[in-house]
Amino acid sequence: MTRLGVCYYPEHWDRSVWRDDAKRMADLGLSLVRLGEFAWSLIEPGPGQMAWDWLDESIGILADENLEIMLGTPTATPPKWLIDKHDDILAWDRDGRVRGFGSRRHYCFSSETYQSHSQRITDAMANRYGAHPAVTMWQTDNEFGCHDTVRSYSPMAAKAFRAWLETKYTDVHALNIAWGNIFWSQTYQAFDQIELPNLTTTEANPTHWLDFYRFSSDQVVRFHRQQADIIRQHAPLSKITHNAMGHFFDFDHFEFGRHVDVLTWDSYPLGFLSQSRSSDAHKHAYLRQGDPDFAGFHHDLYRSCAPAFAVIEQQPGPVNWAPDNPAPLPGMVGTWLMETLAHGGEFASVFRWRQAPFAQEQNHAGMLRPDDQPAAAFCEVAELKSILPQLTDAKAPASVALLFDYESLWMSEIQPQGTGWNYQDIAESWYRAVRRLGLDIDIVAPGAPLTDYQLVLVPSLFHVSDEASAAFEATDAQLLFGPRSGSKDVNGNIPPDLGPDKLRPLIPLTVARSESVPAFETPKVTGPTGTGAWHAWRDDVVTELAPILSDEHGRAVLFHHERTQMFAALPDDNLINSVVETLAEKLSLKSGSLPDGLRLRRGCGHRFAFNYSTKEQTIPTGLAPADGLYKAGNATLAPGSFAMWVDQ
Amino acid sequence: MTRLGVCYYPEHWDRSVWRDDAKRMADLGLSLVRLGEFAWSLIEPGPGQMAWDWLDESIGILADENLEIMLGTPTATPPKWLIDKHDDILAWDRDGRVRGFGSRRHYCFSSETYQSHSQRITDAMANRYGAHPAVTMWQTDNEFGCHDTVRSYSPMAAKAFRAWLETKYTDVHALNIAWGNIFWSQTYQAFDQIELPNLTTTEANPTHWLDFYRFSSDQVVRFHRQQADIIRQHAPLSKITHNAMGHFFDFDHFEFGRHVDVLTWDSYPLGFLSQSRSSDAHKHAYLRQGDPDFAGFHHDLYRSCAPAFAVIEQQPGPVNWAPDNPAPLPGMVGTWLMETLAHGGEFASVFRWRQAPFAQEQNHAGMLRPDDQPAAAFCEVAELKSILPQLTDAKAPASVALLFDYESLWMSEIQPQGTGWNYQDIAESWYRAVRRLGLDIDIVAPGAPLTDYQLVLVPSLFHVSDEASAAFEATDAQLLFGPRSGSKDVNGNIPPDLGPDKLRPLIPLTVARSESVPAFETPKVTGPTGTGAWHAWRDDVVTELAPILSDEHGRAVLFHHERTQMFAALPDDNLINSVVETLAEKLSLKSGSLPDGLRLRRGCGHRFAFNYSTKEQTIPTGLAPADGLYKAGNATLAPGSFAMWVDQ
Amino acid sequence: MTRLGVCYYPEHWDRSVWRDDAKRMADLGLSLVRLGEFAWSLIEPGPGQMAWDWLDESIGILADENLEIMLGTPTATPPKWLIDKHDDILAWDRDGRVRGFGSRRHYCFSSETYQSHSQRITDAMANRYGAHPAVTMWQTDNEFGCHDTVRSYSPMAAKAFRAWLETKYTDVHALNIAWGNIFWSQTYQAFDQIELPNLTTTEANPTHWLDFYRFSSDQVVRFHRQQADIIRQHAPLSKITHNAMGHFFDFDHFEFGRHVDVLTWDSYPLGFLSQSRSSDAHKHAYLRQGDPDFAGFHHDLYRSCAPAFAVIEQQPGPVNWAPDNPAPLPGMVGTWLMETLAHGGEFASVFRWRQAPFAQEQNHAGMLRPDDQPAAAFCEVAELKSILPQLTDAKAPASVALLFDYESLWMSEIQPQGTGWNYQDIAESWYRAVRRLGLDIDIVAPGAPLTDYQLVLVPSLFHVSDEASAAFEATDAQLLFGPRSGSKDVNGNIPPDLGPDKLRPLIPLTVARSESVPAFETPKVTGPTGTGAWHAWRDDVVTELAPILSDEHGRAVLFHHERTQMFAALPDDNLINSVVETLAEKLSLKSGSLPDGLRLRRGCGHRFAFNYSTKEQTIPTGLAPADGLYKAGNATLAPGSFAMWVDQ
Repeated sequence: MTRLGVCYYPEHWDRSVWRDDAKRMADLGLSLVRLGEFAWSLIEPGPGQMAWDWLDESIGILADENLEIMLGTPTATPPKWLIDKHDDILAWDRDGRVRGFGSRRHYCFSSETYQSHSQRITDAMANRYGAHPAVTMWQTDNEFGCHDTVRSYSPMAAKAFRAWLETKYTDVHALNIAWGNIFWSQTYQAFDQIELPNLTTTEANPTHWLDFYRFSSDQVVRFHRQQADIIRQHAPLSKITHNAMGHFFDFDHFEFGRHVDVLTWDSYPLGFLSQSRSSDAHKHAYLRQGDPDFAGFHHDLYRSCAPAFAVIEQQPGPVNWAPDNPAPLPGMVGTWLMETLAHGGEFASVFRWRQAPFAQEQNHAGMLRPDDQPAAAFCEVAELKSILPQLTDAKAPASVALLFDYESLWMSEIQPQGTGWNYQDIAESWYRAVRRLGLDIDIVAPGAPLTDYQLVLVPSLFHVSDEASAAFEATDAQLLFGPRSGSKDVNGNIPPDLGPDKLRPLIPLTVARSESVPAFETPKVTGPTGTGAWHAWRDDVVTELAPILSDEHGRAVLFHHERTQMFAALPDDNLINSVVETLAEKLSLKSGSLPDGLRLRRGCGHRFAFNYSTKEQTIPTGLAPADGLYKAGNATLAPGSFAMWVDQ
Repeated sequence: MTRLGVCYYPEHWDRSVWRDDAKRMADLGLSLVRLGEFAWSLIEPGPGQMAWDWLDESIGILADENLEIMLGTPTATPPKWLIDKHDDILAWDRDGRVRGFGSRRHYCFSSETYQSHSQRITDAMANRYGAHPAVTMWQTDNEFGCHDTVRSYSPMAAKAFRAWLETKYTDVHALNIAWGNIFWSQTYQAFDQIELPNLTTTEANPTHWLDFYRFSSDQVVRFHRQQADIIRQHAPLSKITHNAMGHFFDFDHFEFGRHVDVLTWDSYPLGFLSQSRSSDAHKHAYLRQGDPDFAGFHHDLYRSCAPAFAVIEQQPGPVNWAPDNPAPLPGMVGTWLMETLAHGGEFASVFRWRQAPFAQEQNHAGMLRPDDQPAAAFCEVAELKSILPQLTDAKAPASVALLFDYESLWMSEIQPQGTGWNYQDIAESWYRAVRRLGLDIDIVAPGAPLTDYQLVLVPSLFHVSDEASAAFEATDAQLLFGPRSGSKDVNGNIPPDLGPDKLRPLIPLTVARSESVPAFETPKVTGPTGTGAWHAWRDDVVTELAPILSDEHGRAVLFHHERTQMFAALPDDNLINSVVETLAEKLSLKSGSLPDGLRLRRGCGHRFAFNYSTKEQTIPTGLAPADGLYKAGNATLAPGSFAMWVDQ
Repeated sequence: MTRLGVCYYPEHWDRSVWRDDAKRMADLGLSLVRLGEFAWSLIEPGPGQMAWDWLDESIGILADENLEIMLGTPTATPPKWLIDKHDDILAWDRDGRVRGFGSRRHYCFSSETYQSHSQRITDAMANRYGAHPAVTMWQTDNEFGCHDTVRSYSPMAAKAFRAWLETKYTDVHALNIAWGNIFWSQTYQAFDQIELPNLTTTEANPTHWLDFYRFSSDQVVRFHRQQADIIRQHAPLSKITHNAMGHFFDFDHFEFGRHVDVLTWDSYPLGFLSQSRSSDAHKHAYLRQGDPDFAGFHHDLYRSCAPAFAVIEQQPGPVNWAPDNPAPLPGMVGTWLMETLAHGGEFASVFRWRQAPFAQEQNHAGMLRPDDQPAAAFCEVAELKSILPQLTDAKAPASVALLFDYESLWMSEIQPQGTGWNYQDIAESWYRAVRRLGLDIDIVAPGAPLTDYQLVLVPSLFHVSDEASAAFEATDAQLLFGPRSGSKDVNGNIPPDLGPDKLRPLIPLTVARSESVPAFETPKVTGPTGTGAWHAWRDDVVTELAPILSDEHGRAVLFHHERTQMFAALPDDNLINSVVETLAEKLSLKSGSLPDGLRLRRGCGHRFAFNYSTKEQTIPTGLAPADGLYKAGNATLAPGSFAMWVDQ
């Protein structure tokens, strides 16, 4: 059953208001409350001095109102007394500076000292509350990697990295081969000669970086698992989660997701639009609504990482941390919450209950104002109270899949080879090309089964593993590959027979060489399959196939063979939109493209429409139900609103 | 009596030219000569080896020509031998690097070692020259804070900061409350746990920063006072000054000004325009004249900081330190000097006598070229010789005040919450709105008496102290407040009953929440009170008042209650111009708006017009006197020129 | 005899392919092979463990095919074991951080430890191969200064700098005078007080910087000479070279060139265009061809630095290190190679034989693809095989010289005094003004004899030495000087009688002061001698001469006296083009200006045309020969192609 929740920091308020807070939450229809993360200095004010009373009381009060507790381990904020005792807890930045106390996330994942204290405090909390019937979910730490903290350049990280490399390669000669260390006399005689790849005179070896990225991702998983293992011992019936973030790819969430029950995430559509690389026109159009595909992309990505997903922090109003922090359109918070549920989320929880008047986040809105009056989000949540019970657990299968690959992103970050290549932007552009047709989509990992789909989009898959290759061959779906697919081996090097490497059985061609071009070079592409331009990247392809799309200068842009399409150049938004639309029509998947800012989604036994536009938008005929069938809204949606009808 | 002066570095030139220099200064009508700052290595070539002869001689020669001496302590440039003996003199930058010897201002205000040497050299100089009849003014150090030196991140600064905090809070628990350290487990158990707010993993606590800004400002005042106290002992009849800068707000000049007799400043209109955030169009229009309100703003600000103000360094030609360094229009140097006097300056002094052909400032013009020939500034000063004696000491009271607040600037720098909010730009925009009407204006500190004004502008006052509140209530003036006024308590936190806090007795409203928006969001505003747009910032206001101005989407922009006006959004230049013009008309303060680049000012028993335009400009009818009354210029001013007539 | 070559890394490939590689090189018509640089870890896998067998074999195989070897010392890449033994080898960056192992060029030129190891490995290699008949040339190290490595801020550099200063000045008082240390109390009592000029509080003394630049340049020359002296002992009949770079001016190549037999350089026209400050329009027009004057400028510069010049690394396709890396137009690689020979290059050699599939440069094209198939460069070299034997050693004298001065570049980098002044851009702009007229040009050092030229361009010569002055007076050529010429003395200070100092005998004027202006200030200039605008820089000149060009506001722009022309403002491209064209017409040097992207050059007994345009271009009538005379191409050149005909 889908539910709503809220993040709550009782330690920020006088105990006299706790009971009233709990009652108001329950009255509002909330059923989940997250608390505890960041509270280490209150739980353990000095070494070994545990102070549980406040937390006992707070949990008790919430439980009295039948609210379920999502309890966080407080390891994102070790207290000052612990840092002062152990300076080997702190991470180092890429410039070699210690990242000090004074905010949060001030620790290095590779600090053995900190790992032991992380386990100690987790054990103490899980021991005390693991059997509490109201504590039904545990969150480890908070936002692993926020503030660029996945990768630490400390001596502890260097030591752990060497051990990781020795485990992976056993023999340093194997590492020398994998990295190509014969180049520039980089050959190592022993693992303990290897340093971290920062502060080199010019760029370090790309496989050195790639292994460091992988190691750093593994350290996050390992740190989480140390806590999760302890929690499972004390609370075998509770679910375990961690809150992931938006536009954040520094660790592999597919791998991480194997170690949680629910992968939750923190959805801040306005903050992320402000931070993004989008054009000013796009930012202006969606200033107070967010990019219409921001939340959906992450819902669909995180849904496939773990058994379940949810939003644990939903933006409730203006935030404090983006370059600019506008207020959401009226209704927008409710629409975001409903969209989470429509995409299959287990629950949607607002951050936070009451706006704090002090410290770093004092300008971050809550459901209540600092003076305890209801803020916009409070009212919008109240309006959902009658709608929630109508939702079911029904899932609607998607016919389209988009393959997303963390390692391709890492490889292109390490060796971009061109200013216009951004893996995240490309993946989101291809995702949008599907969503603007009103289609649901699954985002899947390389190697995931593809047999249930009719159309599989692969924006770019640098290294094609045997598992990924087998999945492509096993499906009957139409396959659409972007450039650079199959361009690298497992070490990020060029495969012996060049790209597209293991994709060649699908389409007989070879990428002889590639070029990258600046933003002003956008050759036009026009053809029966698509119209637009290519930009940023182009492959010179050797093949007997005739291209099905070429640019204005006659350079090949798209090849087709059997059920495989492969780009020889990076399509711009117009070109990917029209190529995907052509494929969707060919597969009879679509019935019309949507007006600006409108998105559709099936889920919870219903169909939903969400209007991200600042204008009224009408669901196209053929996609909308008859007038009387709406459970919420209707065919013409006000700005920021949603509509809902039974999926028949 | 108003006077002109010059900055002089006899140590840069052979003694053979000193006497001729002094004669030429006197012949030119100069009466003040500044010297001595930067000369430590010549005064004390080695530890304790005092070498006074050159300075004795130089002062004697100048005194022989009846020139008065403004003598500077040389503490902005401690010599290398002193640094080599004491490495705890040097400041550290925000990145944790020592800021080394090799230029100037290479010391940390919190270095106890340096404080003692600063007092030692000051005592030696004041002892020698304190009773000299020609030495009538003492300047401490030079440009405190230049090159970002107010805030040092050294261990000495950390130690002094902890002591400052302990003095302020006594109990660390009080500090924890004030800073909101319950947030993110930042609670301290003891003052000696507290570090400086730099090099934290993400942003440090804003009150931590605010107290560090206050501490750093206090350290500047303290360092100055250590010297001033010594000087007063030896030279009880001399005036004490220090040279402030333009666009520089890192210490509180209202507080600092209490410890000088004259607050002088260094006016470089072209250098500061080149450095500024102004549009290219504005920079182009005023390329060789400077922003028409740059000098005036600082004259009016510094006039209210201390018993008197003056310009001690006037740009004489191209300088060396701005991105681009154009030459002033012919006549412009004379116009700048006269404007200083018109705004009530005690004197105006040119930097420097003769351009040095060597070292960092070799491309900085002087009154003489390096080959000893007169440069433009020399000739323009000569032309003022006959005008100066006509000026009187008469002051003309202003009817408009603008409230400027260093702490509001600091708070918005620490937590800008939006890209478009810049306190300095806002204050200057509001200042310009008054000056373009031909009105004189006083810039005043929060809490200053406001009873003598008819119109008081408060661009933004984050924290409203009891004193400021009382001053608002005591005046009958019309009050115009910008957004964010009353948005913070004394710790920079949100007040319990939200904004506008202590301004609520003036106007009954509450700011429920605020939003910041990017530069492309500029909703239009049209109404009887004003026309333009809002930008960057908007408050959602809860009130029973009806707005007197709203934007094109119906959002409230300006409220009015009794004699108080308050913006709910940040006005752009057009909107603040028209709202101020409407208020001025209502108060019968103005008779017409001025053509581009023209500025008026009453002072010294006269009225003045200054033409900052590259075109001829004519004083509007009604503001100009009859033709025969001009003492200088006339109703139509050539580019860069001034006009003057008796104020009747 | 002109020849072609290739850079080859046998250590990257299995020995089984070495013999086939050699045969294919010989078959292709190559005669030179460069190898060995970067191979230290293979030559000496551990301390003193020499492993020559692979290199013996590789050289033997190449010699068997009559290929001549250019052998590189491997000192650009000291192995990890050596770094681990001696941490005083590594350089420090300007921010005070050690520049670590992990890429290349990880050493400080001032490390005495490294100097001794550099000499040790050079001696070992020269001892083994110095007498080998196939080894006809030795390259020291690789790309001195690449990755900003000329200037190191290490303690070893500080020590060596102090010794260099003591040698130069003997007495620290002389240094104090030369630097103007009386300014800001910077006076030193002893050389050991002097630190490096980085990490000062604000900008360090400019002569301090200038001497540090000169010292750093000298350290490069010294490091090279240490190796060259050893090589000459063992290989007295071999030539010595080093590979310089494009757009790289951190050491003085005129001085350096005195210590090589051939100054080779590495020509990457597309990579450098991508990195450049050119407009997007210019970058777009020449995206896949390179700037039409990039290679020519460096050919002409390096030709005058040493007895001979050559290109040792020619870009063969897309590279990996520029922001964007497009593929050259078909034919472009062949055109670049021929242009090198036309400009008098001894040989032209392609980097590299086969693209490496691993490590930092895996995306850098070669003549062969990683899968051993021919890439574009292979085919284009093959097409030159029949053309090369027709070329002779004949040289064609140029009638125009452009004076280039490393110290002027350094002085303007240290004290730019304006955003629009870039010495390199100015020099290239003036070079282009000549080349677009179809004229050949020599680039010469200050003081070089000028008697053989009819026109001498001096874009800017800050300090005019006695030698330079004598050369100007000794020639009958027309002289054209840019602004700031003669503006500095040998210490970078202002000369006693101001600019143009020692040029005043050529043209009687004095620069009273100078102004710099931003990019939006571009006053128009129209006159019989030239049309365009000035930008960035203008001098106020005192003279009895009437200007021959003035701007729209009447400010003087160009003066003329006898055979000397001198600008009082920096001409934009249009103005310098038209002024040079007027002078060329006056001297009857030119017969027409060339269409976009077309360049001409005489050399090797022939005349050549090169088409850098993306369009067909036709050689103007009067410059082209009769149709039947072409040895390659014809009067209308395809994009990227060249034409060649006998010079009669």
